[in-house]
Amino acid sequence: MGKTIAELIEDRFGLPTTAGATLPAEGTVAQLLAHRTHRRYKPDAVPDEVLEIVLAAALSAPSKSDLQQVGVVLVKDRAKQATIGGWIPDMPWIATAPLFMVFCGDHRRIRRISGELRHRPFPNDTLDMFMNAAVDAGLVLQSFITAAEALGLGCCPISVVRNHVEKLSELLELPAGVFPVAGLTVGYPSQPGWISLRLPPALTVHTDRYDDSHLAAELDAYDRRREARHATPPASQRFVDRFGQSDPYGWSEDKARQYSVPERHNFGPFIRRHGFGLA
Amino acid sequence: MGKTIAELIEDRFGLPTTAGATLPAEGTVAQLLAHRTHRRYKPDAVPDEVLEIVLAAALSAPSKSDLQQVGVVLVKDRAKQATIGGWIPDMPWIATAPLFMVFCGDHRRIRRISGELRHRPFPNDTLDMFMNAAVDAGLVLQSFITAAEALGLGCCPISVVRNHVEKLSELLELPAGVFPVAGLTVGYPSQPGWISLRLPPALTVHTDRYDDSHLAAELDAYDRRREARHATPPASQRFVDRFGQSDPYGWSEDKARQYSVPERHNFGPFIRRHGFGLA
Repeated sequence: MGKTIAELIEDRFGLPTTAGATLPAEGTVAQLLAHRTHRRYKPDAVPDEVLEIVLAAALSAPSKSDLQQVGVVLVKDRAKQATIGGWIPDMPWIATAPLFMVFCGDHRRIRRISGELRHRPFPNDTLDMFMNAAVDAGLVLQSFITAAEALGLGCCPISVVRNHVEKLSELLELPAGVFPVAGLTVGYPSQPGWISLRLPPALTVHTDRYDDSHLAAELDAYDRRREARHATPPASQRFVDRFGQSDPYGWSEDKARQYSVPERHNFGPFIRRHGFGLA
Repeated sequence: MGKTIAELIEDRFGLPTTAGATLPAEGTVAQLLAHRTHRRYKPDAVPDEVLEIVLAAALSAPSKSDLQQVGVVLVKDRAKQATIGGWIPDMPWIATAPLFMVFCGDHRRIRRISGELRHRPFPNDTLDMFMNAAVDAGLVLQSFITAAEALGLGCCPISVVRNHVEKLSELLELPAGVFPVAGLTVGYPSQPGWISLRLPPALTVHTDRYDDSHLAAELDAYDRRREARHATPPASQRFVDRFGQSDPYGWSEDKARQYSVPERHNFGPFIRRHGFGLA
């Protein structure tokens, strides 16, 4: 007997369910439920034909008002890939991955169309427009990952490229209006990877009204489930010099510590200099 | 002989390809390539078990730093659904869809964790954080659509709910830090739908450096391909009173006209009042 969809859901949340108990774990839904991030790859290149197919599937994603505010930069120049990897030494898979690419929001295209090509006004230099471009890129990124995994590839999204947004934009010649949302490493996995336990739907799914009145209790249980599956070694606690050792330590304490220091305060100012008004 | 992956790619872009010429059009990649937006549904409800499975698959999507800044609100109260539909009368499928839901960026959870539960500083009230939440919601939205389509459902994303962001947030009791990215109508399609022709990869995929020097020529060809497939009736040209009739008319002229008037200037001010600094 193979696995069921219910068992995949239980793997994902660490909670019992009867949903999908009679459905075999196969097909697209099973693949999504079994999603894993892959950071270690076989040396094999991603064939051009496979890449073209995956890109076509990714670009089939829906888009806000059909605007298609997305641009994908394939970094095939190994020297450029090594340069980006050099900025982020704690993620060596950036430099060594068979394929590295950057998913961008592309607001430049509609601005060139409106102003230069069709001579129409564009009174929409808004935060909403910026978000549309970022989300369009996110939809294509997610579809890319799904298509890639369906063809046996594994991926790791790299949002930390935005820590280096100025240098990255210069290296990839991203003009005003085009900004990186995430990098992605791609290759054939050399290891099985592992399932990242998700917050319980009790916290992420609401009915008719938002309700997080049960946050503390649900988080404590989630922290315990995660630690039971992959305990955080004491040496991996963040910023012990400032906050000491916590026991128990878990996802919520780890994330609180992670964001206790400034991250990416360069990104907003960059976007404001780079073609966006954000009204 | 069934269709091939290459034929699906040709349907999507209206351009010839040899990629996938020997691969049958089946499985996850074929489903993504054949994605269609569905706005008309059979009256059948989405079974609770199917919804639970699709949500679990959606929430399996990757997330920036594992922060999972997403919240999904299922609008099961038909009166609330009708209220939202009433704000947007030119999209009657909002009120009539078997299921309506709203995908939100949820930055509130990490702020409550940091401040109220773990007592850590949070010096990260940045544009980057806002974008992370929006993109996390987008990744879950895309995975939801993919999983739903795999189980025979059809979906239509509704970004126009953000035109009514103040009323929507009040109706669904979205607190500070939680904001709608898109609504989604869901149901079993009653019509086949149609393939939305995508911009050529020559414009959306770049190698090593961004290059849109060929924008005008590629756009003209794209406009012609789209019009050849679905010609825009003269009566459907936008803002003829201001811009007259264009011949040819196409995607680029249509989008330039669409954004020639202000859209969603309420969204940025709402976000700034609603728990975000956007530094």
